[in-house]
Amino acid sequence: MFYVIGLGLCDEKDITVRGLEAVKSCSRVYLEAYTSILMVNKDRLEAFYGKPLILADRDMVELESDEILRNAAAENVAFLVVGDPFGATTHTDLLLRARDLQIPTQIIHNASIINAAGCSGLQLYNFGQTVSLVFFTDAWKPDSFYDRIAENAKFGLHTLVLLDIKVKEQSEENLARGRKIYEPPRYMSIPTAISQLLEIESIRKEGILDGDSTLAIALSRVGSIPEGSTNDDDGTQRIVAGTLSDLQVQPESVFGKPLHSLIIAGKKLHELEAIYAGAFAVNQENWNRIAKKTF
Amino acid sequence: MFYVIGLGLCDEKDITVRGLEAVKSCSRVYLEAYTSILMVNKDRLEAFYGKPLILADRDMVELESDEILRNAAAENVAFLVVGDPFGATTHTDLLLRARDLQIPTQIIHNASIINAAGCSGLQLYNFGQTVSLVFFTDAWKPDSFYDRIAENAKFGLHTLVLLDIKVKEQSEENLARGRKIYEPPRYMSIPTAISQLLEIESIRKEGILDGDSTLAIALSRVGSIPEGSTNDDDGTQRIVAGTLSDLQVQPESVFGKPLHSLIIAGKKLHELEAIYAGAFAVNQENWNRIAKKTF
Repeated sequence: MFYVIGLGLCDEKDITVRGLEAVKSCSRVYLEAYTSILMVNKDRLEAFYGKPLILADRDMVELESDEILRNAAAENVAFLVVGDPFGATTHTDLLLRARDLQIPTQIIHNASIINAAGCSGLQLYNFGQTVSLVFFTDAWKPDSFYDRIAENAKFGLHTLVLLDIKVKEQSEENLARGRKIYEPPRYMSIPTAISQLLEIESIRKEGILDGDSTLAIALSRVGSIPEGSTNDDDGTQRIVAGTLSDLQVQPESVFGKPLHSLIIAGKKLHELEAIYAGAFAVNQENWNRIAKKTF
Repeated sequence: MFYVIGLGLCDEKDITVRGLEAVKSCSRVYLEAYTSILMVNKDRLEAFYGKPLILADRDMVELESDEILRNAAAENVAFLVVGDPFGATTHTDLLLRARDLQIPTQIIHNASIINAAGCSGLQLYNFGQTVSLVFFTDAWKPDSFYDRIAENAKFGLHTLVLLDIKVKEQSEENLARGRKIYEPPRYMSIPTAISQLLEIESIRKEGILDGDSTLAIALSRVGSIPEGSTNDDDGTQRIVAGTLSDLQVQPESVFGKPLHSLIIAGKKLHELEAIYAGAFAVNQENWNRIAKKTF
């Protein structure tokens, strides 16, 4: 059996009981470590599972899928994915390959940011399509996310914006020279994300995003805390609400360590959504004033 | 601490390790049993947790929230929800009430149909807003879902359609007479759902849904099986793809026991999505012919 197992959002204890039993039954366990990250390292997972993990980077998953699937018709092999197994296209590829090889597969689902974003208080059925925002470079500023946000906005829907992570990336020079030297991991911060969003707005000028009147909610390390906890350590979940400008000017310490996501609230914001999220506002008066216009 | 804990989709083993530890620490444990259901009964959960569960119906959650929250600032109380805690508005109400009472809360996330729908092979970021479809009566055929599907369709997006469940409902007569006699639970089937969708199309005539050319994927009991398992018992997950008409004419046994959900594929269907989902098609030739028009 080839198991694809969601690990959830935070640490080793977010795996389901079913998932943990499956892991314990496996002779090889791969950990996908490039589309997202947990908040704990590989050692801690290995200690919890009582078995070694094989780190699977993008190259391995894309080029060595047959090695990952080796003998999985006869023995149990697990492929662990942060969040839910169906977050990234690559895993569909793996499952299709397993299907070709007539290897039985089992998916063990878990929370992902797609549904855990409900912790903001915004209702999941009021979200439109999810978008990803990649780090801009001087030469490359892909802006298709803007069209998606505009489409969602047209119908008053919220947009979940997933922020880029760069894990095991090579510099252009190292890539060109074929040197397998990797840059330190980078995680997009909320202020960077908002700057990029507003940069594209200033180019496209369609009035989709506005620093002073677009409401947004920054999510940090979803799933990692008691909400309303008084623990100020930045390893815990944090939800911060405000206009794009309110959030953009916050020091990065307000959001704390990665991973971060951003929700852009749609104009169909309901009163209950606004009240729930408003408790997390950096400027409550501002939040209430703008939110009220939507209902 | 007041815990709101997602149970995931299928049975007692879909709770996370973190969730299970929290349940075991609680002096009272409520099970929300009206917005969705697990595939196992209360006894099995109680045996697994080693403690009794208090069934919380809609009346209790809406009218007796203070009893549910009683003393939760001093002892641990859990409120268990099928799927993820943020699926239903009512739970936001409970959390707001806890906030008013200054009771610390902790959310333990889990899979919900919103993200597990990825098991269809359709990419989650190509989904628009989720809709709910309620049982029509002769006098009441709410059709706002049609506008939502139309909005999603405008941008080529998929729509997840959640099908009505009626648990602990009273007949009109019993309701009028104030008799607390409840009808047996009812779960909307895929053919019924499709009939309702097409009925509204025949009234609204906007060309959003078409029996012969709209592709759809029926999901049954997501999370409950080895995909590709040869186990024919209908307690296992099943994915069935086809045009709306293909699915509408299937006997109900093809979909098996509840719960069922339906995905209406958008016109932006990618080739990889079509291939993955196509393996579940009742009429593969038909599926491929229509899917090819989208890419």
